[in-house]
Amino acid sequence: MLKDKIQKEGKYLGKGILKVDSFMNHQIDPQLMKEIGLEFARRFKDCGATRILTAETSGIAPALVFAIEMHLPLVFARKHQPITMAENPYKQSAESHTHGKTVELIVSPEYLKAEDKVIIIDDFLASARTIKALVKLVTASGATLVGIGAVIEKSFEGGRAAISDLGVQIESLAAITSFDNDQINFN
Amino acid sequence: MLKDKIQKEGKYLGKGILKVDSFMNHQIDPQLMKEIGLEFARRFKDCGATRILTAETSGIAPALVFAIEMHLPLVFARKHQPITMAENPYKQSAESHTHGKTVELIVSPEYLKAEDKVIIIDDFLASARTIKALVKLVTASGATLVGIGAVIEKSFEGGRAAISDLGVQIESLAAITSFDNDQINFN
Repeated sequence: MLKDKIQKEGKYLGKGILKVDSFMNHQIDPQLMKEIGLEFARRFKDCGATRILTAETSGIAPALVFAIEMHLPLVFARKHQPITMAENPYKQSAESHTHGKTVELIVSPEYLKAEDKVIIIDDFLASARTIKALVKLVTASGATLVGIGAVIEKSFEGGRAAISDLGVQIESLAAITSFDNDQINFN
Repeated sequence: MLKDKIQKEGKYLGKGILKVDSFMNHQIDPQLMKEIGLEFARRFKDCGATRILTAETSGIAPALVFAIEMHLPLVFARKHQPITMAENPYKQSAESHTHGKTVELIVSPEYLKAEDKVIIIDDFLASARTIKALVKLVTASGATLVGIGAVIEKSFEGGRAAISDLGVQIESLAAITSFDNDQINFN
């Protein structure tokens, strides 16, 4: 269902950039997003997680459906520190592929604890820059990382290799192997 | 359930600012968020909507559960224009209460059409600055606004009066009438 959607509505814009704004990154297809969350729940149901962590903005939708199914609290790392946030939050920088700049990811110590077992969810696993920043936030809190899930993987960008030494379960729901011939090619 | 959560976990920080980071704006309580979405669906089920519109970031969670229940596509206005977005998007500025600065709200014409009937969902209805910016985006697209929903209303900030002349159904799920005596007082 997801691969079909990517083939039909995804647009390859060149330079490794895939536009999925019609169903994930600007408009959300609610039934597809629900299926994505349920599939994450099927894959991660046995890893003993206590909290789910994602990043603003496009990780929130898949992570939320997953969190509802798992009955687990969901924390989304903020890009800007709101005035409501406690002092001395955990902060990490990550380069954003689709915005072409560095963003900060910020989590309050109130919602990430040393005793937590954390699953990280994001929309893309490409170079894994965002995911690695989220991993560092988990490490800074003293919590234990137990899984990483991404909706779409660009497996030719090396992200999985960059995080495989973490030794946790890594799941992507659709893996794109190349954009050769300006087409979206799956494994 | 929502009022109870606000009483127990909401923190009044002074200057009219309510911190609800533990269940809505930084961490999300999944079961509460599901109930919020279902309640919006109960209240708006008969207004003939074809699309739901919200704003990054904290509107996404309640709007998504609502969208899933209604089987309607959800569009979230972006604060920064991603490189994947079509040219000449609709843009409006709104002052952000919790960030203390002006933010842009941007929607691509691809996902908001003249034939649409739109429900706007946001986390707060306070001064209605964000919601009024979303209304202007709807107007710019030629679509018809059919409803406005907010999770928490601060009814002493005048937002409802500022949008009541739109003549559409306005729903909030918990209305705070004052922070007198530094307490959270409901109607």
